[in-house]
Amino acid sequence: MHSMLLVTAAALLIGAAPAPKLLTPNDIVAQSPASAWNTIPVDDLMVIDLANGGRVIVQLAPAFAPVHVANIKALARGKYWDGATVYRVQDNYVAQWGLNESDKPWPAGVMAKPPAEYTRPLKGLNITPLGSPDAYAPGAGFADGWPVAYNAKAGWADLTHCYGSVGVGRDLSPDTGTGGELYAVIGNAPRQLDRVIALVGRVIDGIDRLSTLPRGTEALGFYKDKAQYVPIASIRIASDMPAGERPSYEVMDTLSPTFARYLKIRANRHDDFYIRPAGGVDVCNVQVPVRKKTA
Amino acid sequence: MHSMLLVTAAALLIGAAPAPKLLTPNDIVAQSPASAWNTIPVDDLMVIDLANGGRVIVQLAPAFAPVHVANIKALARGKYWDGATVYRVQDNYVAQWGLNESDKPWPAGVMAKPPAEYTRPLKGLNITPLGSPDAYAPGAGFADGWPVAYNAKAGWADLTHCYGSVGVGRDLSPDTGTGGELYAVIGNAPRQLDRVIALVGRVIDGIDRLSTLPRGTEALGFYKDKAQYVPIASIRIASDMPAGERPSYEVMDTLSPTFARYLKIRANRHDDFYIRPAGGVDVCNVQVPVRKKTA
Repeated sequence: MHSMLLVTAAALLIGAAPAPKLLTPNDIVAQSPASAWNTIPVDDLMVIDLANGGRVIVQLAPAFAPVHVANIKALARGKYWDGATVYRVQDNYVAQWGLNESDKPWPAGVMAKPPAEYTRPLKGLNITPLGSPDAYAPGAGFADGWPVAYNAKAGWADLTHCYGSVGVGRDLSPDTGTGGELYAVIGNAPRQLDRVIALVGRVIDGIDRLSTLPRGTEALGFYKDKAQYVPIASIRIASDMPAGERPSYEVMDTLSPTFARYLKIRANRHDDFYIRPAGGVDVCNVQVPVRKKTA
Repeated sequence: MHSMLLVTAAALLIGAAPAPKLLTPNDIVAQSPASAWNTIPVDDLMVIDLANGGRVIVQLAPAFAPVHVANIKALARGKYWDGATVYRVQDNYVAQWGLNESDKPWPAGVMAKPPAEYTRPLKGLNITPLGSPDAYAPGAGFADGWPVAYNAKAGWADLTHCYGSVGVGRDLSPDTGTGGELYAVIGNAPRQLDRVIALVGRVIDGIDRLSTLPRGTEALGFYKDKAQYVPIASIRIASDMPAGERPSYEVMDTLSPTFARYLKIRANRHDDFYIRPAGGVDVCNVQVPVRKKTA
């Protein structure tokens, strides 16, 4: 792996003419036209500023969990999370934040008992199929920039639990969680949670601010002492921030020819280091490109 | 998820008789007979002591990469790693350690150019099939406690890159790496590396000592300054340690009826929190149980 540093533009020579360079996924991103990208609506960016200066940015997914996402925006705007902390970090699983067992009243606009937004109708989504088998659902692929699983016969689709996915903590069913307690995946894709919990988005920047936190030593990774809780300074929706301070991101259009090429190469790495293309890829290993947008 | 704390032995009542408790994977482990476990040979345990007091324990896999594993034992016994550090930590990917670009001579017994131990013959392995489709190989399952992929027609099997897997850094092929530079997976299973790199084992204890390290800011997660390198005090094979200090672990026998039940429940959680069993599971999400052995 050490060697991957050496894997640069080492063109293979066949006779006198240089062979075409074997592209990496990063090459596809670097060469992509502007038309291959969609700007993420500023109203769908949640900006979490830790008290230690770290910033975590979450892209919300209103097309998949509209009520929970509306709740989350109302919670941010109603200052519900003043005093919130990261209070649970379980290795190879999740980091979780919020007020933890608080009785604080919900701000205006929060639906206390949202519906179970664990799947949505497949209809209305433009799916780019993964092209590889999935262990958890009849189909997997991408829709509007998101990794999804689906069942064409039954007519449902859902976001998949991948590294960075953000979901809603809940009590036992029929509770679905309000959105007040959220977690981000910091380990191997826990797909067994698909269709069991409402996913509301994904961390698109700063995940290392969560993934490097000390693991909690209590059951399920809860911190033993409140002194270990990691304080959150603020949680805001980017559209509420002063214009000059708003972050901006774009996500690759999963219907674009560029993404089709990216997906193909993700499943068939043949650049210098990869002596043998896999011929397949897991939906969570594709990692739809997201990047900061420069003004 | 917060709620999972509440999921205890809440027996459902049907009429007057309590229904059988719906078992979790942890319940299966807790109830397992001693016959369901195999002790890991003490000669296959690599003990990495960080200078900060953290300990990481790796189970080596001589049945899959015999020459690389023999090299690793010779490197440990020849004190090759005196002065080694963790010098690369890439989020959602790997933590890597060794001497990084050193010209230090190999100790006696190290084969400088080992064969490409990226697969092994399927023959000779007793496979427990996963029972779910795999995106990267025609078959996936478990052999002698390890997650594996295989191709029955072509006759090969290989260890899969899962969270905690330990592999050998190498330069461009035909180099296969000696074993002097090793990495552990600290993110979503990077299965695209299967059959491209020699896997030599897995972290069975203390992975959080690697997964919580600060991420490197250079390309591929290398630390920018040597001052950021995380010093390693010693790397030893457990059989070389004084008898009273040797750690001891056991791994669930993947041919046992207990493992069959564990695997089935991993694919079909139906305890209280899981309102909907997945009906499938990824090979890296099964997590063959490993535990410290108490004398």
